Amino acid sequence: MQRTERAQKRLPVGLDDVLEAARRLDGVAIRTPVFTSRTLDERVGGRIFLKAENFQRGGAFKFRGAYNKISSLRPGTGVASYSSGNHAQAVALAASLVGSSAVIVMPRDAPEQKVEATRGYGAEVVFYDRYSEDRDEIGRRLAVERGLTLVPPYEDPFVMAGQGTASLELLEEAGPLEALVVPVGGGGLIAGSATAAKGTQGGIEVIGVEPEAGDDTRRSLAAGHRVKIAVPRTIADGLQVDAPGELTFEVTRLLVDQIVAVSDEQIVQAMVFLFERMKLVVEPSGAVGVAALLAGLVDVSGRRVGVILSGGNVAARRFAELVSEPSG
Amino acid sequence: MQRTERAQKRLPVGLDDVLEAARRLDGVAIRTPVFTSRTLDERVGGRIFLKAENFQRGGAFKFRGAYNKISSLRPGTGVASYSSGNHAQAVALAASLVGSSAVIVMPRDAPEQKVEATRGYGAEVVFYDRYSEDRDEIGRRLAVERGLTLVPPYEDPFVMAGQGTASLELLEEAGPLEALVVPVGGGGLIAGSATAAKGTQGGIEVIGVEPEAGDDTRRSLAAGHRVKIAVPRTIADGLQVDAPGELTFEVTRLLVDQIVAVSDEQIVQAMVFLFERMKLVVEPSGAVGVAALLAGLVDVSGRRVGVILSGGNVAARRFAELVSEPSG
Repeated sequence: MQRTERAQKRLPVGLDDVLEAARRLDGVAIRTPVFTSRTLDERVGGRIFLKAENFQRGGAFKFRGAYNKISSLRPGTGVASYSSGNHAQAVALAASLVGSSAVIVMPRDAPEQKVEATRGYGAEVVFYDRYSEDRDEIGRRLAVERGLTLVPPYEDPFVMAGQGTASLELLEEAGPLEALVVPVGGGGLIAGSATAAKGTQGGIEVIGVEPEAGDDTRRSLAAGHRVKIAVPRTIADGLQVDAPGELTFEVTRLLVDQIVAVSDEQIVQAMVFLFERMKLVVEPSGAVGVAALLAGLVDVSGRRVGVILSGGNVAARRFAELVSEPSG
Repeated sequence: MQRTERAQKRLPVGLDDVLEAARRLDGVAIRTPVFTSRTLDERVGGRIFLKAENFQRGGAFKFRGAYNKISSLRPGTGVASYSSGNHAQAVALAASLVGSSAVIVMPRDAPEQKVEATRGYGAEVVFYDRYSEDRDEIGRRLAVERGLTLVPPYEDPFVMAGQGTASLELLEEAGPLEALVVPVGGGGLIAGSATAAKGTQGGIEVIGVEPEAGDDTRRSLAAGHRVKIAVPRTIADGLQVDAPGELTFEVTRLLVDQIVAVSDEQIVQAMVFLFERMKLVVEPSGAVGVAALLAGLVDVSGRRVGVILSGGNVAARRFAELVSEPSG
């Protein structure tokens, strides 16, 4: 029995961890709303439930994992992270909430807005040159020199468990679902989501969505081992990873049923649909699930399907560029 | 006593009408969410509650008034309306829900998207030439010839009462408020809102917001009678009226404390703030309240203030144009 094999495997994260994360996050993370849309249902022929993590603190699901990790550390532990995206702000915010100091390593050419937002949460920003320096090494060195604990964006059981709480809430609110559709970058969100979903509703199908140019997890599943690709060029900046994580891939290969891939054009179409029909601002990485549905890549016909809208951090001018290009 | 004078005046709409509208709309209109934002509160120095009518059926508060009116008619009564905006779709949708036929008079050059959306609700669209024909006359003639009941966009007690239910819900959810900030076009929304607010929380200040170019209600209040201006040029297309309604002005002059006016640039800044910080899509007319707060035109310091985000019907490409212009 496949199920028994799964249970026997010692996975890095389990349903208990997600449930414990949910208790830690209770009253701290926003229990984000679930949206439905007659128009979307008619368009795709199923009953769709959208979990709006764009309304999460920091504008993305990343707060869940970061807070779950940081709040599990000995009080007062300083933390460090490297990221140019949503994870950095999530770590800065989570650290400020538990009264810890945070150092975020960012590329020198990171958008001023993101640097300011990170500093706004009280974090120290350390710059590196993304063309000549290795951020992992800088992060590790800082951690050693200053006695900081690194908070990885996905390669950590507490981070994965925290991310899984979004799906846990969605499943609680929407009731039984036949499928769950989740964006895939490094794999933290889908690992946590699959753990929550298969743990609470055994028969549910878990479907990951990657950008076409960055389908490292799809290739890895096909190959049966982690495959590394060139750093993908895609508008889904949150999903620009070149390989799945080790820990996340252990979970993904056992619990995820299928990975589909969407084009940048399909992502923009989904962002426009969410904007015009549902009045929701969703960033490119956050819109891949709806993109897959609208493009007919997932069979949702007559099914109850949950979709994670993972974040909403896109500048208005960037959105304007995306929807004004001929392909949009 | 001013209060007694008010009570003695026989206004066209009262709290009872709003409460009755709320009962009619219960389970039909969406009880839209109320959003708060630490960032907004810090920026303006008050505690702000945003009523998100962009999530209402049809994408704007207009559904409330239209449904309240149409559902109060004898069953099967056909209805007619003229509008190129949110009211047309609201009438079409409300008529379809109660099983009535609807005829909507629209300018021949109305956006295809709006025409299709109106037809999508099962309404018949009758075109007129906005440069050579009078839509009021066409609407009235159609009504007479076909025995249809006209559903005016604001000059109607049922319409005003329906619009007031948004504020009623906001006041119920947010608790006691010191001020309520509401967009002003023809005056249906603010008449209903002021009726609900002063009727339930006597001491509350009711503040209307107009576009600078279309401050007909502000001028009318200053003059003590309805003043007609040239049709205003403003991006807030829902507020492009040249004079307050007769009935709405009767309510406004007694119950509204103050009108402020915002520039198109301030409106765009508010739309960008709502997009980037709150992940909400709000159309220009719907963003005037937040624009007034961000521009410092309303004293909210240390106060609990409700704001109606009246709608979210703006095309993605139009939003892109607005935020890409140098003034934005």
